[in-house]
Amino acid sequence: MEDRVMQKLSYGLFVLTARDGEKDNGCITNTFIQVASTPNTVSFAINKQNYTHDMIMKTKVFNISVLSESASFDIFRRFGFQSGRDVNKFEDFLCKRAENGVAYLDSSDTNAYFSGRVLQTIDLGSHTLFIAEVTDGAWLSDTPSATYAYYFAHIKPKPEAKPAEKKGWICTICGYIYEGDPLPADFECPVCHHPASDFRKL
Amino acid sequence: MEDRVMQKLSYGLFVLTARDGEKDNGCITNTFIQVASTPNTVSFAINKQNYTHDMIMKTKVFNISVLSESASFDIFRRFGFQSGRDVNKFEDFLCKRAENGVAYLDSSDTNAYFSGRVLQTIDLGSHTLFIAEVTDGAWLSDTPSATYAYYFAHIKPKPEAKPAEKKGWICTICGYIYEGDPLPADFECPVCHHPASDFRKL
Repeated sequence: MEDRVMQKLSYGLFVLTARDGEKDNGCITNTFIQVASTPNTVSFAINKQNYTHDMIMKTKVFNISVLSESASFDIFRRFGFQSGRDVNKFEDFLCKRAENGVAYLDSSDTNAYFSGRVLQTIDLGSHTLFIAEVTDGAWLSDTPSATYAYYFAHIKPKPEAKPAEKKGWICTICGYIYEGDPLPADFECPVCHHPASDFRKL
Repeated sequence: MEDRVMQKLSYGLFVLTARDGEKDNGCITNTFIQVASTPNTVSFAINKQNYTHDMIMKTKVFNISVLSESASFDIFRRFGFQSGRDVNKFEDFLCKRAENGVAYLDSSDTNAYFSGRVLQTIDLGSHTLFIAEVTDGAWLSDTPSATYAYYFAHIKPKPEAKPAEKKGWICTICGYIYEGDPLPADFECPVCHHPASDFRKL
């Protein structure tokens, strides 16, 4: 089977947040869905290398902020392109705190949030599948939810708008252009921190 | 929490098919996603009252046909608004058969299909969550995948286009109008077979 067939699946986009002691953290996920109606049950799958994964494995409590079509690329850069092990993703960042004590995003970037408590976890190799009950939540705006497809079409910067004008290497993750050749093997994108292997030659 | 908050979640739309002996069956689902990359693992949640649910619990083998933005409402009517216990959903219906022996849809309604084998099932009350490996699949067309939101905006008929012109009760599922009052308590929609409780007064 061609790898690209997996791209035919549709997803929403979310900021998953956790709190362990005084430490807030969060990451981007696209796998949050409802999986049962009675009782109201949700699931999400998180890569085990993710710091938020380890925090929720420990605390069992989380919030999901639903990203809307007015979400800015900055949200993806902040929560998706760096690790909470290296930086405080909540530094200089305005958010609210739900009744469960965990942060959530109430801004033009989001249209709803959910609080949840993990009921069980399933080890799937690269990822853990979390199954959880919804304990709280609120409608924040009428703006439609962003899908994964919408993100690629409208939110993620278009790196190839004028590819002929610049020479060098382009970061396929965020569109940053390194104007030189060769690209150093240990180069790290200054915008999204992805490695040289995520660049391609213009 | 308001019930409508759950509507902020995004989903694709799929026809899930199964085969038990000589019996083909299928249903509409919106919960098919990838939940791990290594190994390639998917999940979907199906209501236990569904006949396709029981077939896959028994056979452990299924196909998922991905509905595209050119899917017709007839597909939803055929696979979503009736039960395989009462009718043969594949009667007079053109489909293909994958290597696993199960039917899939290769038409203007779909843009890809997957074959899968169930690895484990999780009882969630109203629904069972199926976790499965992908055994095969193919890209069928470049048409974008239909999201649940797209279905409501563009595929599902608009029952309220001219609400002032008709009096009676409207089926909120498919838009059929019963021109009379009161609506009998045991009335069943002749189009989608949903009960009187799914009607509202015009």
